[in-house]
Amino acid sequence: MEGDFKVTPWEVTGEIDYDLLIERFGTKKIDEQMLDRLSKYGPLHPMLRRGVVYSQRDLEWLLDLYDKGVQFALYTGRGPSGHTHLGHLMPWIFNKYLQDTFDAPLYFQMTDDEKFLFNENLSLEDTLRNTYDNALDLIALGFDAKKTKIIVDTKCIRTLYPLALKVAKKVTFSTAKAVFGFDNSTNIGSIFYTSMQSAPAFLPTELEGRKVPVLIACGIDQDPHFRVTRDVAEGLGYYKPSLMHTKMFPGLSGSDKMSSSVPESTIYTTDPSKVVRKKIANAFTGGAVSAEEQRKTGGKPEVCAVFKYQFYLFEEDDRRIEDLSERCRKGEILCGECKKLLTDRLVRFLEHHQQKREEAKDKLEDFLMKD
Amino acid sequence: MEGDFKVTPWEVTGEIDYDLLIERFGTKKIDEQMLDRLSKYGPLHPMLRRGVVYSQRDLEWLLDLYDKGVQFALYTGRGPSGHTHLGHLMPWIFNKYLQDTFDAPLYFQMTDDEKFLFNENLSLEDTLRNTYDNALDLIALGFDAKKTKIIVDTKCIRTLYPLALKVAKKVTFSTAKAVFGFDNSTNIGSIFYTSMQSAPAFLPTELEGRKVPVLIACGIDQDPHFRVTRDVAEGLGYYKPSLMHTKMFPGLSGSDKMSSSVPESTIYTTDPSKVVRKKIANAFTGGAVSAEEQRKTGGKPEVCAVFKYQFYLFEEDDRRIEDLSERCRKGEILCGECKKLLTDRLVRFLEHHQQKREEAKDKLEDFLMKD
Repeated sequence: MEGDFKVTPWEVTGEIDYDLLIERFGTKKIDEQMLDRLSKYGPLHPMLRRGVVYSQRDLEWLLDLYDKGVQFALYTGRGPSGHTHLGHLMPWIFNKYLQDTFDAPLYFQMTDDEKFLFNENLSLEDTLRNTYDNALDLIALGFDAKKTKIIVDTKCIRTLYPLALKVAKKVTFSTAKAVFGFDNSTNIGSIFYTSMQSAPAFLPTELEGRKVPVLIACGIDQDPHFRVTRDVAEGLGYYKPSLMHTKMFPGLSGSDKMSSSVPESTIYTTDPSKVVRKKIANAFTGGAVSAEEQRKTGGKPEVCAVFKYQFYLFEEDDRRIEDLSERCRKGEILCGECKKLLTDRLVRFLEHHQQKREEAKDKLEDFLMKD
Repeated sequence: MEGDFKVTPWEVTGEIDYDLLIERFGTKKIDEQMLDRLSKYGPLHPMLRRGVVYSQRDLEWLLDLYDKGVQFALYTGRGPSGHTHLGHLMPWIFNKYLQDTFDAPLYFQMTDDEKFLFNENLSLEDTLRNTYDNALDLIALGFDAKKTKIIVDTKCIRTLYPLALKVAKKVTFSTAKAVFGFDNSTNIGSIFYTSMQSAPAFLPTELEGRKVPVLIACGIDQDPHFRVTRDVAEGLGYYKPSLMHTKMFPGLSGSDKMSSSVPESTIYTTDPSKVVRKKIANAFTGGAVSAEEQRKTGGKPEVCAVFKYQFYLFEEDDRRIEDLSERCRKGEILCGECKKLLTDRLVRFLEHHQQKREEAKDKLEDFLMKD
């Protein structure tokens, strides 16, 4: 059924209609005019050109201030529920582009408390272990340690808690219920938690002693938290954070969101080449039953997980991606060849990433925010 | 109407039927047998002899362990909403007796977060300022710095937060609603808060690395929090805390609970003698309209705030308190004289306390728990 999908910070189901989501959430499409404007600060990131980063809140306002010389801060994060997969990397890579383009400090929140509260099977020890493991993936992407601070919730709680309390005092259970779909059986930690996710949006102002605009670039599924943040911001003396939303990174099974609950359709940053090869070999492409058939009818890149991987993350050259799409539709390139292209690229990417990830172990301490 | 009273951690109204409260809360009366048992550890405190400390949970169990050589810890606290008044001192004085009698460490929680969340007009700066001010009153009572740690919620949050999260994960909104009477308009910080009040009950076990029994001696109005604590304790691997409950310290107006919302019927530890004299002069005694009349009919110590002050806190000699009661009933001592007796005693007490309070300023740092 059309519109029969669900996007919350903890659950994404159904086939997402991203335009309808903009309506539901009340955000604004990143339109041509905005792309034009963004292109003035540097070459547009492919995720912008291709509509992977497709929605925003108050981005004009933030850029107006920036143009007047007011530096903004970036804020994004990770719920450390397990290993990092490619879906997690996508918005981080985009934040790297933002940091490089706008020379902005990045506050990166690791919500070990959240993942403990929302997952029956995870202990706080688990989520903290995941935190330090996932942080390596962030650092491996090349962020500048001088401009990037990783905030671990339970370790930076002295800093975060007073801010979270100020948020929490302004948010009723009614609001939390309406925004997140909580009910009477929800645990009281989960109910409180959104305050913790709001806190880093106000931290730059506290640290710098001036009202600092904040840009949150994150998956659109996280937007509900930041609606709450925006609602309380001005009453607490802060700017409302601006947002840029990415679409969900697809699963190899063709689903709309890569998810750790389906490991075989998920590529983790620590997967060895052999595993990657196997996972891509089994990926959903929507191709025809036989090569002969497919040469006749052509493929459907719009449903193909392998094509989407190139489109979302790996093939940055627009001409080449267009070419790939056309050749697929015409039946000139078959799924096997296409899978090989992606596999080679992905294996190279992961080999490089895994090396950087090892090097990151020595840098971790420099990135962790002191409490 | 009988039973038409309300006792919650944030609201005490109506005339409290303390026996009925035991039924409602499901606690156990401190009976003669228990008093006998307690008297073996040292002279019974007047609050025990007079039923001011009148209710308990699992005290037999705690003493059984103690008799076998298992040391317990004490835990109580203060919501720093303003100045300390005599009503606050009462359970602290009782905890001093417990510390001295059982050589037990005391963990004393200052809930600056709670008072911020539950009071529209208090900022976190207010409740933190109150915290350090109120701590002086605790220290002034003569607690042993080596055995007494003051836990300031926002300052010890790194230690408390993981414990609070573990509690919060086990408590649903349903439970919080049923125990505290929350509704949809309650803020999400208030809903979470009870987890923070549970945390210190589990702290001794964490700090000592063995399962430590805990005794919480506090006003009976705080019992709802510790019902939650007890419900989750064993599932988290801790002992259920035992409790001893005090009645509410009366107001000078004759109400059941001294309250800062009625400053003229409340004696603060910082009140100068002149103010104390005036407040007691205006106190409710239930005496007759004229001295002549009162000599005839006698007074009613059971409703008299001045008598209650002597009974609850200031006259430790049972013979004398009995004598005072009888002479009042017979009309042999009139309200004026009785007020003078209390005033003199109270002024002496406060002068001494205020001096100790000044000295406490140099000791504060030694009492604050490090995070």
